[in-house]
Amino acid sequence: MAEPADIYEKVMELAKRRGFIWPSAEIYGGVAGFIDYGPLGAQMKRRIEDAWRAFYVIREGFYEIECPTVGVEPIYVASGHVKGFSDKMCQCPHCEEYLRADHVAAAGGIGNAAALSAEALGETLKSLPCSACGEELGEVRVFDFNLMFNTWIGPGSQRKGYLRPETAQGIFTDFPRLLRFYRDKLPFGAVQIGKSFRNEISPRQGMIRLREFTQAEAEIFVHPEGKRHPRFDRYREYAVPLLGCEEQCGKGEPVLVTMGDAVKKGLVANEYVAYYIALTHDILVTVGVDPARLRFRQHLTTERAHYAADCWDAEALSKRFGWVELVGIADRTDYDLRAHACESGVALTAYLPLETSRMERRRRIIPDMKALGPKFRGRAKEVADALVKADPGPDGVEIEIGGERIAIPSSLYQVKEEQVEVRGVEVMPHVIEPSYGIDRMCYAVLEHSYDEDMVEGEVRRVLHLPPAIAPVQVGVFPLVSRDGLDRVAAEVASLLTAAGIFTEFDESGAIGRRYRRQDEIGTPYAVTIDYQTMEDGTVTIRERDGMAQVRVKKDTLAATVRGLLGGHTAFASLGP
Amino acid sequence: MAEPADIYEKVMELAKRRGFIWPSAEIYGGVAGFIDYGPLGAQMKRRIEDAWRAFYVIREGFYEIECPTVGVEPIYVASGHVKGFSDKMCQCPHCEEYLRADHVAAAGGIGNAAALSAEALGETLKSLPCSACGEELGEVRVFDFNLMFNTWIGPGSQRKGYLRPETAQGIFTDFPRLLRFYRDKLPFGAVQIGKSFRNEISPRQGMIRLREFTQAEAEIFVHPEGKRHPRFDRYREYAVPLLGCEEQCGKGEPVLVTMGDAVKKGLVANEYVAYYIALTHDILVTVGVDPARLRFRQHLTTERAHYAADCWDAEALSKRFGWVELVGIADRTDYDLRAHACESGVALTAYLPLETSRMERRRRIIPDMKALGPKFRGRAKEVADALVKADPGPDGVEIEIGGERIAIPSSLYQVKEEQVEVRGVEVMPHVIEPSYGIDRMCYAVLEHSYDEDMVEGEVRRVLHLPPAIAPVQVGVFPLVSRDGLDRVAAEVASLLTAAGIFTEFDESGAIGRRYRRQDEIGTPYAVTIDYQTMEDGTVTIRERDGMAQVRVKKDTLAATVRGLLGGHTAFASLGP
Repeated sequence: MAEPADIYEKVMELAKRRGFIWPSAEIYGGVAGFIDYGPLGAQMKRRIEDAWRAFYVIREGFYEIECPTVGVEPIYVASGHVKGFSDKMCQCPHCEEYLRADHVAAAGGIGNAAALSAEALGETLKSLPCSACGEELGEVRVFDFNLMFNTWIGPGSQRKGYLRPETAQGIFTDFPRLLRFYRDKLPFGAVQIGKSFRNEISPRQGMIRLREFTQAEAEIFVHPEGKRHPRFDRYREYAVPLLGCEEQCGKGEPVLVTMGDAVKKGLVANEYVAYYIALTHDILVTVGVDPARLRFRQHLTTERAHYAADCWDAEALSKRFGWVELVGIADRTDYDLRAHACESGVALTAYLPLETSRMERRRRIIPDMKALGPKFRGRAKEVADALVKADPGPDGVEIEIGGERIAIPSSLYQVKEEQVEVRGVEVMPHVIEPSYGIDRMCYAVLEHSYDEDMVEGEVRRVLHLPPAIAPVQVGVFPLVSRDGLDRVAAEVASLLTAAGIFTEFDESGAIGRRYRRQDEIGTPYAVTIDYQTMEDGTVTIRERDGMAQVRVKKDTLAATVRGLLGGHTAFASLGP
Repeated sequence: MAEPADIYEKVMELAKRRGFIWPSAEIYGGVAGFIDYGPLGAQMKRRIEDAWRAFYVIREGFYEIECPTVGVEPIYVASGHVKGFSDKMCQCPHCEEYLRADHVAAAGGIGNAAALSAEALGETLKSLPCSACGEELGEVRVFDFNLMFNTWIGPGSQRKGYLRPETAQGIFTDFPRLLRFYRDKLPFGAVQIGKSFRNEISPRQGMIRLREFTQAEAEIFVHPEGKRHPRFDRYREYAVPLLGCEEQCGKGEPVLVTMGDAVKKGLVANEYVAYYIALTHDILVTVGVDPARLRFRQHLTTERAHYAADCWDAEALSKRFGWVELVGIADRTDYDLRAHACESGVALTAYLPLETSRMERRRRIIPDMKALGPKFRGRAKEVADALVKADPGPDGVEIEIGGERIAIPSSLYQVKEEQVEVRGVEVMPHVIEPSYGIDRMCYAVLEHSYDEDMVEGEVRRVLHLPPAIAPVQVGVFPLVSRDGLDRVAAEVASLLTAAGIFTEFDESGAIGRRYRRQDEIGTPYAVTIDYQTMEDGTVTIRERDGMAQVRVKKDTLAATVRGLLGGHTAFASLGP
């Protein structure tokens, strides 16, 4: 068993050495908040993204779109990021390091640091040590630092641009096009996987706090009334460890609740939120997060965005970082569409036909232009336009033109009562948003799957990755590199590659060392070609976790390995 | 047949309407040089990227890595982008629009505009009209505009950052890690697919000239001597239309040459370049570029980078844009590694063991410190260090210290001849770089696959996409939405989806209209459930291009469709 204290160092040492994660621009001294995915890390990350797509794109049927990472300012004015996407910062007067003020305060034992105002934080910091040099900070100014990277689009500083802080905004701004694509029906969903950016003040947590990271976000547009999920049955009996607001104020222990019960008891706001909590649990366990180190924590009303109807974080337990948010699942109501409609002037609503049209009485105001003209001259048209939209009483109506209130007597217009056939209604959908941090998922999967055991008197490092996530799917080794074994092994490797199985051929070093190399990168199966292969055409397959070996026919090897990788064949069922 | 003149408008109208390509941030008026991939476009783009991976990652065995899009300044100082990645720009004094000076000149009939200096261009522009407002430009200043987007990393403007202009630099800066990953052997390759950025002065060409675009780049590190590709046989007999330097000066017609001949005749510099020209042709035709509208053009010595040993562009013919570069294939020699080694101070070489070690005579200079000390005092150590590296003659040697040349007589040092065992050599690899513009490939595939024919007296729009690239793989329709046909059709659709086939169920509108909808987005097959299905369990499969229909058993449908999509089954072989 790995020691809790140094598991982060062990995981990252392995990740660096074997090509999962490398410091970015390392030959130039690296740069905080950026990482490179090496050959195995990039492969694992892609497999996790594809597992995510299997749930959201293939099973849920939500199409993926791809928007640029650079966006123009109005998008982020509407979304609130220009104004509100910031952290409180101060600069150490001694070492001149920039510090995240709330983190310094929290490290100094201040409980509610994140909720404090700039002034209160500044007051608190006076007697605390700088987290970089250790000197007492003394008098420091605390101010907001906007976390968006900005740039200029085109020459002559023509247009300010931002690197997107989330992929979601591209989906919101494409709402009219998406609605038409889905033939003007609700609910529908769209997803996006891509890079997002956050210009962190002082990132020091490896893969947990990155300045450039990959998100996978789904935006599901639903009818605001009756948030019942059409396929809720799939997860009605699915139980998830939930740490609701109440539990957080109490013992702090999550309770295992089925999604049906969670909605019935009002613990989760509605079926949509519950459905995506369960689906998220399903995905995370599928890609290799340990279910015993996974919980769903509800946002407290103090931390929840004012517009959100409900919000839950999927959190994974890290021995180094504590509970880390991997996914946020929120009912964002119509906040985003309303904000963009307001900023852009484009109506972001869906016109939904009624099942049966209904007749409605409507009043129509008809201004008397002959009377208005002489009375208001140049402003007559403005007055008439205001009248059409007004709601007159029996004695006339007061309208407002350019800030001035004008009383209009009923003699200047006619009121007609009409019967109108209403065939549909304009609805601004609500948005359910599950938002995944892919890099944090990659880290959690590495930490949770890392293990050490003793084999033949030596420490064996092993990543217990799910076969579908492991970067290399099968290792192929000749027992020795002579007597034709190497040639047959190379043929077997080509055969598996041609069958679409990602294979690594390795003929250097003792066979035990080659097994260890594959164990360490999580390769689930290893195939060895030995002298018996030359006699009877069988090879051995070794399973990573139990290290048991069985002999199978070389001719059916590809099908066997595919069955094992796909989960259709149990390893125990193989053999003589 | 589509009219040549308006095919771009037709393709883009279809692309917008059906959800392939949308203007980015459209509700805010859009922004030039950025596009959104809608649901079908993103799916098609992903399929093209995966086809690319099937060649480079699976077949060639080059691992993919993933580096950030934001990079620090030294990377782009080394690469030359800070200094040289710019276009010549001027501003119209009348409408204040920024213009690309060489484009304005070229539009005004100036032949060699791209090669002119800023002064010469300014002179040329005087009498030419502004391409935005049409006024004569008059006196304008022409200057260099750097095309990298820049930003600041961290607070307090700590570090300048750039959005990468190409993915390649991440692979170069990871060279030491990659070399270790590949166990210190040559050749090896690494690839990257991701966003790159180019802050174009005035982009006006839709998907052809984007400010944010997707590249797929491979960097293959090879031994600088003897550039023979180990698997050259694969493409030795493969013929490609090549437009070499000579042909460009002559008739301008490409000649069809096998790669073996091209290398033998010296038309292509070496087997590596030839191999990736052929592989690129193979990929482009696989994803749907019309081979009759594809050529490979060699860079003229005037346009080729000074360090490149050879460079070829894969160009596709567009009715709107003429010959468009989709891919560049270059032998970049050791230019990139040398530049980064120089800027970073890190040795970017591979230590290659010799097959048999050899003994070498080496001279070692041993300075006589007792004599140097009194003579040079404080500079004695500097003199000794310089002596160790010097190459003395029989009468002494001249060294240089701080610009001063000093003659050192042979009495101040000893020369020892030694036998040294040399076991390996340090080699700086050369880089072969095939670099693909994914967005341009998507556009070329759309334009080349677009067609119109007459069906039942109406124009049928159809995209003849290869089945592996089509966003939707099969449409499933009930002939009518009643009598249980809709239920059975929905079951068939679920069955195909579960088999991993991307399926669209459509029950609205006349059957002919549903076929047209799928033809228009390139769906290769459509399955219809009719009354006969209810009797004998057969369904019809219709093929997009020929519109022929055959009946097949519902039970074996998934396997049949998979066979058709994978190219193992010919449509003509189906049927009664």
